[in-house]
Parts: sequence; C-alpha cells; structure tokens
Amino acid sequence: MSAMNKLRIFVDFAVIPEVLELLQAGTRGHQLVFPKTPVTSVLARAERDPQFAAVDIAFGQPEPEAIAEASQLKWIHISTSGITRYDNPQFRALMAERKIPVTNSASVYNEACAIHVLSFMVAQARKLPLALKTRAASSTNAWKEIRGTSGTLRGETVLILGYGAIGKRLAESLRPFDMKLMAYRRKPRGDESVPMITEDRLADALAAADHIVNILPDSASTRHFFDDARFAMIKPGAVFYNIGRGTTVNQDALLEMLRSRRIGAAWLDVTEPEPLPDEHPLRKEPNCFITPHVAGGHAGETKTLVSHFLKNFERFVRGEPLLDRVM
Amino acid sequence: MSAMNKLRIFVDFAVIPEVLELLQAGTRGHQLVFPKTPVTSVLARAERDPQFAAVDIAFGQPEPEAIAEASQLKWIHISTSGITRYDNPQFRALMAERKIPVTNSASVYNEACAIHVLSFMVAQARKLPLALKTRAASSTNAWKEIRGTSGTLRGETVLILGYGAIGKRLAESLRPFDMKLMAYRRKPRGDESVPMITEDRLADALAAADHIVNILPDSASTRHFFDDARFAMIKPGAVFYNIGRGTTVNQDALLEMLRSRRIGAAWLDVTEPEPLPDEHPLRKEPNCFITPHVAGGHAGETKTLVSHFLKNFERFVRGEPLLDRVM
Repeated sequence: MSAMNKLRIFVDFAVIPEVLELLQAGTRGHQLVFPKTPVTSVLARAERDPQFAAVDIAFGQPEPEAIAEASQLKWIHISTSGITRYDNPQFRALMAERKIPVTNSASVYNEACAIHVLSFMVAQARKLPLALKTRAASSTNAWKEIRGTSGTLRGETVLILGYGAIGKRLAESLRPFDMKLMAYRRKPRGDESVPMITEDRLADALAAADHIVNILPDSASTRHFFDDARFAMIKPGAVFYNIGRGTTVNQDALLEMLRSRRIGAAWLDVTEPEPLPDEHPLRKEPNCFITPHVAGGHAGETKTLVSHFLKNFERFVRGEPLLDRVM
Repeated sequence: MSAMNKLRIFVDFAVIPEVLELLQAGTRGHQLVFPKTPVTSVLARAERDPQFAAVDIAFGQPEPEAIAEASQLKWIHISTSGITRYDNPQFRALMAERKIPVTNSASVYNEACAIHVLSFMVAQARKLPLALKTRAASSTNAWKEIRGTSGTLRGETVLILGYGAIGKRLAESLRPFDMKLMAYRRKPRGDESVPMITEDRLADALAAADHIVNILPDSASTRHFFDDARFAMIKPGAVFYNIGRGTTVNQDALLEMLRSRRIGAAWLDVTEPEPLPDEHPLRKEPNCFITPHVAGGHAGETKTLVSHFLKNFERFVRGEPLLDRVM
C-alpha cells in the first residue's frame, strides 16, 4: 500500500453522515471526490462533473462517455446489480484494453431481492391481496374461494430465469417447501446448485413450471425475452414474477396473457417505464401486482453498499482479486 | 378386523363426490352416517341429529352434549386443529372414563398455517401492502420510505407462542433467514427443535423479539393471554402475528398498541368475533392486516382431511395407536 499513490475516489451519490464517516475511515490516506450535485438514489443517473476526468476510482453510476475521457481511471465499482449501460461489446473492449476492472454491487442486493420474490410467491400462494381485502364470513362462497384456492407451494415447480446470486439465494429460501427447482442462464458455469435448463429445453421447462421467476438482466439479447411466443409456452395458470428488468418483458403480450387468464397472476417489481403510468392497462388487471422497483431495498442499504465497496477497496489496494467482478 | 362389528361412522360435513368415494372406499364394510343438514365448513357447527345417538365413531365437530348421550361412541376425530369446545376437565374426564380416544386434524392444517404466517412475515418485511398500493417514482420520499424500511429478516428474533406442529414447521421455513428463534409452550416436552422459553423468562423474550407469533389455542388459561400487561413487555416496534385463536388477545389492548405505535404492525388471521365487523376500530388501523381465518386452508383441503381420517380409521380398526391424539 505504501507504494501506491494517494487515490482519488469519485462517489456520485449522497450519503448520510454516519455512512460518510464509514467511507472516510475506510479510505483514509486517499481522497474522496463528490460531485456538486450528488444523486439521491442508486437508480438515478448523476450529472456530468468536471472533476471526474482526473479520478482513479469511480463508485456509483458513472456515465460511459465520462469514463472514456477519464484517463487515470483504474477501477469502476457500480452501485447497482444491473450493469445495462456498460454491458456492451464496445465498453467491454475498452475496459479490457485499458485494463480497468469493473465490479458491481450484486452482493448488496441479492438477499433482499430473493426475499422480495419469496414474498410475492407466498402472498400468491396464500391469496393475500384478496384475503386482506375481503370481509367474507366463514362458509360463504367468497371465503371458500380463498380458503380452497390457497396453497402451500409443496411439490410445485419453479423455473428461475437468470440464475445468479439472487437465484441461488432464492433457491435456498425455497428449500423448506420441497419444490422442484430448475434454472436457465445464458452461460451455465456447471457449479449451479439447481438443475440447469439449456436453450433447447426451455420450452419444456416453461410448460412444466408453476412459478416462472424472471431475474434476467437488461441486454440486447434479453429485450422482450418474454414475448408472445415464449408466453404461449407457459403452463396455463402458472404465475409469472419479474424482478429483473422491465425491458425483458413485452408488456402487451403479458397483458394479453392476464386478460385471457392464460396465466394465473403476474407479480412485477420492474416495469417499462418505471413507475408504470396510472392509466396503464396492467394497473387495471386484478391479477397483476406491482411494486415500485424496491426488491433490492433494505434498511441501511447505503451502509451495506459502502461496506461492500470498502471490502473491494481493500482488495484493490492490496492487488487482490475483486468481489462481484463483471468485466 | 373380522372380529370387529360393522362400525357406524357419523360424518357431519358435506363432501364433494370425489371425496365421498374416497371415504366410502376407505370405510368399506362399515356404515357412513350423514346428518340431514351437513355443515359446509369444518369451522361451522352442525345441527343436532337424532342418528348421532347410535354411532360408533364421530368425525367432524360433534356437540359435547350429543357425545354425552351417544352411548356406543368409541372414537371421536375432530375435523379441526382447535379443540376448544372439548378441552375442559369435565369433557376430558368423561372421555377417560368411557375410554373414548379423541384425535384432531392438526396434521391437515400445519403446513398451510405455517406458510400463512411466513406470508405475513415476509409481506411485512417487504412492506408489501404499501408497495403494492403506491405509484411512487424512484427517488421520491415515498419510494425511499418503502425501500429504506424494507428488510431481509436476517438476524432478527422470533418468539413463537404455542409451539406445536405449526410452530415446528414455521421454524423450518424460517431456517434460511438466519433468524434467532425461541418458543414458549405451556408444557415443554424437551424434544423441541428451538430453544424453549419458560414462564419466568417470558417477559425477557417478549422484550427481545422482533416478531411475536401467537399460535396459542383457545382455553381458559390462554383467554386474553395478550393483555395490557403482556403487550407492555413487547419490544417497541415489534410485529405481532396471530393465527391461533382470537380469544387469546385483548383486542382493546392491541388497538392501543397500534394507535400509540408501540408495536410496528399486527397481522391477524383470527379475531373475536369472526369476521370482525366492518366498523371495528382494528379495521381502520393502517398497520393492522387481517385475513378471514384462512391460514389452514389449501386446495383439496377436504380430501386431505378425509385421507387423514382414513389413516386413523385403519389404525383404529387394527387397534393401533392413533395419530394426532389429544385425549
């Protein structure tokens, strides 16, 4: 570390004093650089800041154009799980050429995202939206409808699309329910904890699953991954969940699936756009349940985010392999 | 079995043809007796039926008075988990004297009840009631409020009161979340899967728990178990769940806890009375969430109920120990 110069670390989002102290303590001997107008959410985009051109490390959501011009840049740590803006061949080539490692904050949001999906799955199994609204008395038809269509998840089949850290954590959370799990990812690594489905078996898997959990990231290859054709493969009555990115779903196709009751319900934490306008027809579907992109959220989130960055900062300073490296 | 006379089995609730066939097949050689007006829910009480006086087995919710008069009765199988109407010293003494075993249907509802509580816990952790209602855009204060107060359950403490089969199953379902579990029951057996809290440590446990799960049955000793004094012991901000019986909670005390924001939220599947009237003040509390006594419900419930009875019927005919014996 003594051999290393003082590093200039650009942090583009606002932090509360407690977290600032943590960040300062963890980067002592180096220099934190904040923009004049920090953003207040990791999902928002920061304004361009002239100081960025001379920093060594970027922590947040730096503009790809600004990165191209920042000639001192040695490491980029993205403050989200999603890396859509950076995940293209040109940017990857630039990072490879300039030997800039890119890491993301997947570890920060995995657990919250996984339990968010679980909350959707068990709320659906227990018919919570209806059960919390009704005033039905025992033995009435409305009551029997809820009680008799509720379930326990046991023995049901789950297909997870986009099997990374969130999917793995979700699979762990579902273990007590004795479900059949399978997963699909573009490039299986062979070390996945559940059976992996290859492209040629995807149609069969969609036809077999009672629960389809979409955690696909946004990329050219996943745009409208769920279109008319893929939705048509789904088992009638299956439940569809999306906590990946809204762009991976053709919402007109989803709407049609809900209107025709071809799928049982849709639970969406992500949509396109966000928030979905009040007058959007998905808002009017009785079996469509939408939360406002909060799956990764948790109390003390910024603190977790900064702690995760600092763990990686220590590794960076020591020249060790970085956590959550995506490029 | 050949030595046994033809048994008359009184079944007081209505069954669909498929389940009737199952029941007939499983009791072949014996006689099923149905009342003129079968009840349509296991939670409802049947009318007195003159045929009851001469039956050998009662399956359902027989009136204690009718039982006293049914001189041939050899076994009672209750169609619920709750046995409040029967759980008193007089009735127990009568059963002991007449050597009538009493079994209940706990095994039928355990799993559904446990996942119902879990659905409450994760819905609360993810702030689902609010998140499903809001139209908040990213970075707004309303959005940050949801995102920043959501949680993952990790490391939080759960106290389960009334630790039987449901509690055990709940504990299994919570294992992936790395929570601290403890439980309280009147008579610990020593084989419980989580640390048991004795009466003298109950105040400390209530003060330590982030989640208080009440699965206490209704009995003279549990009536208003949660009164002003016990609620006052609760950790500020803790969440209270009730899937036991409504009578175990002093609802005025609960209301006060919610109004003063002393507890964070209440999730109730049982109330007193049921359903709680529309104008009941608990209905107006923003952090009080009520489902209409559906925790044990699941698709195919009557079939599960009858299958469980038939398993016990086989045992009864063979003279083997009965499942879910409560007296």
